[in-house]
Amino acid sequence: MPQLHLLSPAGFKASAVYAGIKRRQRPDVGLLLCDTLASAAAVFTTNKVFAAPIQVGRDHIAGGKLRGIVVNSGNANACTGRQGLVDAKRMCDLAADVAGCDAGQILPSSTGIIGHVLPMRKIERRIVEAGQYLGKSQEHAQLFADAILTTDTRRKSAAARIKIGKQTITLAGVCKGSGMIGPRMGPPHATMLAYLTTDAAIAPTQLRKMLADATEESFNAVTVDDHMSTNDTAVLLASGASGIKITSDRDRKTFIKSLNEVCQSLAYQIAADGEGATKVVRVEVKNAATQPAARAMARAIADSPLVKCAMHGNDPNWGRIVSAAGMAGVAFDPDRCVLTLQGVVVFRAGRPVAFDGAALSAKLNATQVQVELNCRMGKAAQTCWTCDLSREYITINADYHT
Amino acid sequence: MPQLHLLSPAGFKASAVYAGIKRRQRPDVGLLLCDTLASAAAVFTTNKVFAAPIQVGRDHIAGGKLRGIVVNSGNANACTGRQGLVDAKRMCDLAADVAGCDAGQILPSSTGIIGHVLPMRKIERRIVEAGQYLGKSQEHAQLFADAILTTDTRRKSAAARIKIGKQTITLAGVCKGSGMIGPRMGPPHATMLAYLTTDAAIAPTQLRKMLADATEESFNAVTVDDHMSTNDTAVLLASGASGIKITSDRDRKTFIKSLNEVCQSLAYQIAADGEGATKVVRVEVKNAATQPAARAMARAIADSPLVKCAMHGNDPNWGRIVSAAGMAGVAFDPDRCVLTLQGVVVFRAGRPVAFDGAALSAKLNATQVQVELNCRMGKAAQTCWTCDLSREYITINADYHT
Repeated sequence: MPQLHLLSPAGFKASAVYAGIKRRQRPDVGLLLCDTLASAAAVFTTNKVFAAPIQVGRDHIAGGKLRGIVVNSGNANACTGRQGLVDAKRMCDLAADVAGCDAGQILPSSTGIIGHVLPMRKIERRIVEAGQYLGKSQEHAQLFADAILTTDTRRKSAAARIKIGKQTITLAGVCKGSGMIGPRMGPPHATMLAYLTTDAAIAPTQLRKMLADATEESFNAVTVDDHMSTNDTAVLLASGASGIKITSDRDRKTFIKSLNEVCQSLAYQIAADGEGATKVVRVEVKNAATQPAARAMARAIADSPLVKCAMHGNDPNWGRIVSAAGMAGVAFDPDRCVLTLQGVVVFRAGRPVAFDGAALSAKLNATQVQVELNCRMGKAAQTCWTCDLSREYITINADYHT
Repeated sequence: MPQLHLLSPAGFKASAVYAGIKRRQRPDVGLLLCDTLASAAAVFTTNKVFAAPIQVGRDHIAGGKLRGIVVNSGNANACTGRQGLVDAKRMCDLAADVAGCDAGQILPSSTGIIGHVLPMRKIERRIVEAGQYLGKSQEHAQLFADAILTTDTRRKSAAARIKIGKQTITLAGVCKGSGMIGPRMGPPHATMLAYLTTDAAIAPTQLRKMLADATEESFNAVTVDDHMSTNDTAVLLASGASGIKITSDRDRKTFIKSLNEVCQSLAYQIAADGEGATKVVRVEVKNAATQPAARAMARAIADSPLVKCAMHGNDPNWGRIVSAAGMAGVAFDPDRCVLTLQGVVVFRAGRPVAFDGAALSAKLNATQVQVELNCRMGKAAQTCWTCDLSREYITINADYHT
């Protein structure tokens, strides 16, 4: 089977060009268009400071229909006042001309430095140019995936084939995100950007619920630096080009399962490519009293610089993990809980458990580390993905000048 | 005037010895005793995971009276189960024998690694020994101040002489804290430890309110890594040995002002000695809609690793600051606010303000950096102190093995 990509679902085309916004000569303006008017859903940042394309995007997604997406990287078009809005709308105008649709059917996205007005002269010409290079190949999908990257070191994508009865639909997605990753996206909330395509036919109201739910357990559960961006956006477009309608409960469940898996794969890729990351830390809180408690504890552990540094140093310093759970301000009883690192019990019932420090340190020296806190209080669970905190993170963020 | 120190207020004595808990041969067990039964108030960590000495300390402070404090560094006696409680009580028993008082009149404190049982054999002998070295000199005060340090690189102390009518009372304090600094101490809540002495006579109920209020604007407003410890403690002992009672509203205000200043000086010293710190970042949020909003925004800015890295790199990347305020989840309108860095306006009314980047970067290359966000929404204000985030922070916390 050939490799699936963003344009594998029927009915989509894409392109990307270099407009000179990024310093390095990599694609920085991209177009993703649906051949027809797609059913669409999006979640955006809940930051009180949100970029101009977020404001425009919220308007354009309101009707649940989109023809496509125009995106630039290298500049977030955030904190740019009235000019920022004018520029975000102008990007939609140009992309709409390419697609032959209304500007309100295009969702704009930007990512990069905050507080600089977009270099529209460069961008305007390049959007038109990108319109000439649209295609449906894997190369086109990869160029688009590259055009959304900033400090990312690699392209991020995931896809699935889904059996609906005897027929097959396709779901695919790309995303970016490496720093300023602490998304809390809400029904119309990361700078993470994620774009998902499917050729299934799904009504916008259903799509909205599916994306919101999937976001909670994926994009909103990944953290690099817990800094919610002004530009976080995830969009799901359903072209319907497969002719297969998702209407029954069974089909919906099947689709949701795949959507969750694709979103979680993308979230995992963000953690793995977190700024300076050498490993993914998977934090699983189990049997918590309530869902918010599970979420708060998993997040407190995943966000602690002390925990992240210990993981970087392969140090089984579990006291930092237990104390992070305890600071979440939710129901938690250390005398009941069991903490395991890479499957090794280190703390149980309020007391340390003897373990071979050198052996566990060797187990922590891995590209994925599993932290599991069993609260033994209820039935709620939450998984978060984060990365370790390394000297390279400081280099990237202290030396990256505006 | 000779330099003021922890034992300058009349009625206190202290000592410290090396018991072999710390790796480096520095004092790690200390005694601070009042000659008489002191009026006392304390605030402790609000972490759900709290150390054995916190549990014992909450009991012992309940009556508002204490003879003194016994403290060890190098081991937090946290997550140590029933044995931890036995050990914390035993420390009180031994200190009480020295002081000739009831064990319930001694407050125990511990700081250091979590999850290891205290080496009581070493500690027991040394508490008795410390009892033989008690004194009232500056050297004794300094030894006690040293005995509470862990990853700190320097001793922290502050003091004030306070005029009450024609008479003078003295207030002094020492503290420790460098990592795991994100205190939220509550009336009976940081591992920061702070011990304050005064020779004024103040009733316990008054003392409690004064310490709680001062803590909010000092210890609870300092963050290095936003990781609330299992052991955070601040204690204020009033010996009354000056014979001067603080009862009138005017005298109370005078005392409170000095108490706030001493606590803020100690908090500042913690930020300045934050793990890997090269500078203090003073974040002042002004004219916010409400006090909780001001606090949430100041804290979000002070806790952002992206802001802290930018400050380390002398980078006027103000988008990170504005977006941090926006993620606090409180009332905030970027179109109204004014952000200044080292007195230079960089963002106003939703739009960037042109500034000389090189000149501002040079201004940021200082041991204290001032970030001021004027929200122009109300009258609430909050100041937080933090430090920059450096490679040295990673070295300290990734290479420090359990």
